[in-house]
Order: sequence, then structure tokens, then C-alpha cells
Amino acid sequence: MARVVVDVMLKPEILDPQGQAVLAALPRLGVSGIVGVRQGKRFELEVDGETDAEVLARIDRLAASLLANPVIEDYVVRVESTPG
Amino acid sequence: MARVVVDVMLKPEILDPQGQAVLAALPRLGVSGIVGVRQGKRFELEVDGETDAEVLARIDRLAASLLANPVIEDYVVRVESTPG
Amino acid sequence: MARVVVDVMLKPEILDPQGQAVLAALPRLGVSGIVGVRQGKRFELEVDGETDAEVLARIDRLAASLLANPVIEDYVVRVESTPG
Amino acid sequence: MARVVVDVMLKPEILDPQGQAVLAALPRLGVSGIVGVRQGKRFELEVDGETDAEVLARIDRLAASLLANPVIEDYVVRVESTPG
Repeated sequence: MARVVVDVMLKPEILDPQGQAVLAALPRLGVSGIVGVRQGKRFELEVDGETDAEVLARIDRLAASLLANPVIEDYVVRVESTPG
Repeated sequence: MARVVVDVMLKPEILDPQGQAVLAALPRLGVSGIVGVRQGKRFELEVDGETDAEVLARIDRLAASLLANPVIEDYVVRVESTPG
Repeated sequence: MARVVVDVMLKPEILDPQGQAVLAALPRLGVSGIVGVRQGKRFELEVDGETDAEVLARIDRLAASLLANPVIEDYVVRVESTPG
Repeated sequence: MARVVVDVMLKPEILDPQGQAVLAALPRLGVSGIVGVRQGKRFELEVDGETDAEVLARIDRLAASLLANPVIEDYVVRVESTPG
């Protein structure tokens, strides 16, 4: 059993209001030194079996069609250390 | 300039309908071998200056109060490779 | 063709960090008079055929299992004016 | 005290992978008759005082800058029946 993570973030040129809200809230909370915030999605997939190239290619296609909208979002697929 | 990432996921014992929807959609898309999906949030913070222990402690407090709800969500703070 | 909307909000007793971030950002944006913000999800379902009681009961079950987590979220199902 | 709701949905021409995931999951759950699903965000704002035209104009500006990204999302502002 392995864990594959897909991170999905709005493309840098797309305004991210959620991240902007967090950024704008920081001064009131007394937090300084943070100059940018972007908010995206993180998917954790539990894979039954080996995470070989074929499995990762399948997850990449899945990410491009069901987890992210490639027109407005970038995504990254990576294998995480086996959970447990 | 450094990037700090905060991953926020529902606690394992909390049902995650978004992840369930993705999981239930997989067979129809011909994707097999994935036995679990969880969906969470990913925040990317750009920090102006060094990411020393004090900055990370500040971001940890921020995560616990503004980025995640610790009653139902777990979060992880980590420094990513410097962007650019 | 009719549209059914399912609104999903965190239960009032569950802290909503996303809404808190928006609320905390308002003073800096010069917006006053807003004393609370909650952020939830909105699903728009296009139904092929009549939205009779049986269809709405089915969508209610769907909402309780796939759109919302009833342990931490409340949901409301309602028929909107026919689109188009 | 009044409640103002801001609904934010991806523009119709923007692919919505979250909604697609729900739609693709329906057959497996035995739900038929739903031909489209879109997922968006719902913000509930508690307003202290009257929701006159000036307040609504302010919330409209807020929606356009902090709650939605008008390049990819549509939003609707409306006054809901007073809570409580």
C-alpha cells in the first residue's frame, strides 16, 4: 500500500481570492513577514499495490481530468512515504 | 524568500464526502487500484526572510487558528525548497 | 429540466477557519458592518425530468452521503427556478 | 441583523472537476436522472444593521475582490430571510 499525493493549485496568473483573504487577515492577527498566500487542494490517494510508472501515468491522467482543471490549475503528482 | 506549505486534511475518523465522490467516480473512468481518496487543502505561504524556528512557530499558530479547524482537521507545516 | 440546489454549511458549533479568514480581512479592506462570515459549499444539480417527491428524496440521500458529512455539516435541498 | 448570501460558481464555460467527480459517482450509488453537477462556494454574511442599497453595493465589491475571482467565477448577492 502506497500513498500518492496530488497537489492542485490555481495557476500563478489566476487570482486566488481565498489566498488573498488569508493574506489580508494576517496583520489583524499580528502575523508579519508573510508576503503571499495561495490556497489549493491536496488529494491523498491510497494505492493498492506498487506505484510503478504505469500507475503514476494513470493517476496523472486522473489528475488532469477529475482532480484539476488544467486550464486554470496546475497539479503535481508525487509518491509519499508509505503510510503506517 | 522561502516557501512554507501547510497541508490541512480532515482527521482520519471524519468522513470526507469529497474524497468519497472521487473514489466512487473511479470505476466509471476505468481507473482501478486506488482504494482510498481523501481531499484536503494546501496553503503555500511566501515568507519574506528566513524560515527560522520563530517564523515556523508563528505559522504553526496561524495554521491552528486560521487555516485549519483542529477539532476536525489535522495539519502539517513544512518548509519547501526555495521557489525560483 | 429543473435545477436542484444543495447548500452545505459547517454546523454552527463547528469553527469555520475559511469564514474567519474572510471576516478578519474585512477591516483592512475598509468594509465595516459585517459581524460574521461562514463559508460553505453549493451544489447545483440538473435533473432530467420532474422534481417530484421521489427525486427530492433521492437527492436528500445523496446529500447526506456524498455531498455533506452530516456529523459536521448541515445541508439544505431546494428546487430553484427552472434554468433557461 | 440580516443575512446576505453570496453564491460563487465557476463560469459555465469553465470545467468543474469537483462537480464532474460527483456526477461520475452517481451511477455507482444507484442515483439516476441527474445529468449535471456543478460545485461552488456559498458565503453567509451576518450584517449588523439594515441591508440597504449601500450595504449591498459594498458586499458586491467585496464579492468581486475577495470571495470570487470574476475572471473564472460568477457570483450572486442576495438578502436571505432574517435568521432567527
